Amino acid sequence: MKQSQLFTKTRKEVPADESAKNAQLLIRAGFISKEFAGVYSMLPLGLRVLNNIKNIVAEEMERLGSQEIIMSTLQNKEVWEMTDRWDDEKADIWFKSKLKNGTDVGFGWSHEEPITNMMRAHIASYHDLPRYVHQFQNKLRNETRAKSGIMRCREFIMKDMYSYCIDEAEHMDFYNKAIEAYLNIYRKVGLGDLTYVTSASGGVFTDKFSHEFQTICEAGEDIIYVHKDGTVAINEEIFNEETLQNLGKKKEDFEAKKAAEVGNIFTFGTGKCEQMDFFFTDKEGNKKPVFLGSYGIGVTRLMGVIAEIFSDDKGLVWSRAVAPFAVHLVELGSVEDTTVRAEAQKLYDELLTEGIEVLWDDRDLRAGEKFADSDLIGIPTRIVVSSKTLASGTFEVKDRATGEVSMVSRAELSSMLKN
Amino acid sequence: MKQSQLFTKTRKEVPADESAKNAQLLIRAGFISKEFAGVYSMLPLGLRVLNNIKNIVAEEMERLGSQEIIMSTLQNKEVWEMTDRWDDEKADIWFKSKLKNGTDVGFGWSHEEPITNMMRAHIASYHDLPRYVHQFQNKLRNETRAKSGIMRCREFIMKDMYSYCIDEAEHMDFYNKAIEAYLNIYRKVGLGDLTYVTSASGGVFTDKFSHEFQTICEAGEDIIYVHKDGTVAINEEIFNEETLQNLGKKKEDFEAKKAAEVGNIFTFGTGKCEQMDFFFTDKEGNKKPVFLGSYGIGVTRLMGVIAEIFSDDKGLVWSRAVAPFAVHLVELGSVEDTTVRAEAQKLYDELLTEGIEVLWDDRDLRAGEKFADSDLIGIPTRIVVSSKTLASGTFEVKDRATGEVSMVSRAELSSMLKN
Repeated sequence: MKQSQLFTKTRKEVPADESAKNAQLLIRAGFISKEFAGVYSMLPLGLRVLNNIKNIVAEEMERLGSQEIIMSTLQNKEVWEMTDRWDDEKADIWFKSKLKNGTDVGFGWSHEEPITNMMRAHIASYHDLPRYVHQFQNKLRNETRAKSGIMRCREFIMKDMYSYCIDEAEHMDFYNKAIEAYLNIYRKVGLGDLTYVTSASGGVFTDKFSHEFQTICEAGEDIIYVHKDGTVAINEEIFNEETLQNLGKKKEDFEAKKAAEVGNIFTFGTGKCEQMDFFFTDKEGNKKPVFLGSYGIGVTRLMGVIAEIFSDDKGLVWSRAVAPFAVHLVELGSVEDTTVRAEAQKLYDELLTEGIEVLWDDRDLRAGEKFADSDLIGIPTRIVVSSKTLASGTFEVKDRATGEVSMVSRAELSSMLKN
Repeated sequence: MKQSQLFTKTRKEVPADESAKNAQLLIRAGFISKEFAGVYSMLPLGLRVLNNIKNIVAEEMERLGSQEIIMSTLQNKEVWEMTDRWDDEKADIWFKSKLKNGTDVGFGWSHEEPITNMMRAHIASYHDLPRYVHQFQNKLRNETRAKSGIMRCREFIMKDMYSYCIDEAEHMDFYNKAIEAYLNIYRKVGLGDLTYVTSASGGVFTDKFSHEFQTICEAGEDIIYVHKDGTVAINEEIFNEETLQNLGKKKEDFEAKKAAEVGNIFTFGTGKCEQMDFFFTDKEGNKKPVFLGSYGIGVTRLMGVIAEIFSDDKGLVWSRAVAPFAVHLVELGSVEDTTVRAEAQKLYDELLTEGIEVLWDDRDLRAGEKFADSDLIGIPTRIVVSSKTLASGTFEVKDRATGEVSMVSRAELSSMLKN
């Protein structure tokens, strides 16, 4: 894409009403736009990053055998009454409104109940199990405070997956595969080394299976205790003698760190399906409740955590896997310099042909402004084309993450970008 | 995909609470699920069709030079007060709620105001114009009645595009290109012959430019008058002497037909931008209001219209362009028949390698049930593999639309599917 066509503009000043680094940078670089506290719109660059993250998540969900759906945002009161979660006393996060005829409607802050209700129509026997479904949905949550940029929003995109199994054994088999899939996702987006599976409520040590995925991050709202060998982390709530004893670990070997929850998975068991009258017929002809699990990743939050961690004082530093473009082609000098323009156009066309996504800064601006914008936007590889590079017969390549600059030939450039 | 893995089941009985053919068929075939009147969720088959339609629309928008964004569903009262459209008296379709601190919030039924407000931050001079942006957004509308299945919903997906131009001439140039893009879309989804551009409010005959795209459809809520030569259609509201005189046509040459609105485009002019204090600096340094246009397609409605028109008494009849799968591979006979199973598996693998999307009915069911499901789901090409076809060394191919059956060799099959 030509940057002269990109409608968003960067800005130098930090938005006055924004204290979170992720939102400050994403707004300044033109990735998102703030509607009001906790509500952001996705602009072209932001949407590209979001879609890259979604694709990574979707691929792992599909490998698990999950099928994609999209449930509605408008929700039916009666479905939530079956599990006694309509009442604001029971779930204090609802946005609600009314149809013209006075009927109450809710706006989806979660979808366990509607999805489970829908699945009832399609599952009757053990032949129909197990089943896994997922969606990428806008969740609307009436949060009292929203202060961490896109890490805690009143509106955000969540990937939620649900598993329906015949019993706990079948469930646990899938549950463990889901943990692996989640870890693959964090690895692919570049957070592998910083992300821990933590048990949230007794977890693996008790009969309640529920885990969080926590990424070490200064802007995180949680505290986790990380063992010095790096293999174990424990949530603050269960960092106690009993947990340590179960693990056979010593308290002094753990260090407290700030962390952001980037995923959570739950074993619901059969309770919710019993409440919702969701039973199946087993091999012996007996009626049994379906065994439910749920698996969430806040996709926009994940984008926020990535922005927090992969950024410096100059701006964002995207990894190739999630970057809005692979290459930022910066053309320097007067746009009337037709030889430079022609060379930039040639490289742009060639890279596109090679399947490499390029943002071409073809604007009539000074080098300093272009470089500042390039650092702020944070595309991993910057290639400069100028009369100087033209004379040398090479391209100037800068790695955004390391800052390393090298002069490379056209052939070297292609092999560089292939890796 | 193996049909044994697809979680949705078809049903024979027509849903009692559903009078619209599109919803009846889409529910029976497992494409959608009803939450309540006017609110549907998209199941795997439905989501595949929806994504195919979205891709067709997206491609045409990108060709126009439009950039994709996603605005939030939660909306800011103050932005809508700028144009006096927050009040329920002025816009009677709002869903509204309140934040915990009492602040009013609206749920997006349209996005002209929030998008225009956002664009203000990025456009200052004539250098920054024209700009075109679009999104695929869930719209929430508090409709009094919802009765046409997914053709008129309280929640639906709309592609809305907005154009920001320096003046009317630049606007009209884009507006006319948008008409062509829209016609391309209807052609690609198979509705080309049935869809007319109609002027909605005097339109081309006056200074107010606003057009609708109307598809002849028995389930439509509108009436249009189509000229016997098929080149002109006129909306009911302006089918009068003045319009006829402007066109130089005779009243008796027109026939009234029921039609569904599948798109609409508006010339807003500079009024809304003036209300929202959205000005730019022109070449001469003068401050001028931006010239606005908007361009909508109800994507889920379009899917409903396609389902209404392309269906028969046996079920849905998708065109290749929007079908959830290109091929329905129906394996007949006992699943213990390993030669048939192996042949089906081989064909399935080969077609996938050729890039053809296949739903493989590998279920242990009678032929009659499989054929009924296949007709109901409506995938364009059905291929039967059985001991009979195996013996003949050919495959039985049925065209869902024409009902034509032919026995073809493996080589013929591939060339058939390439077209």
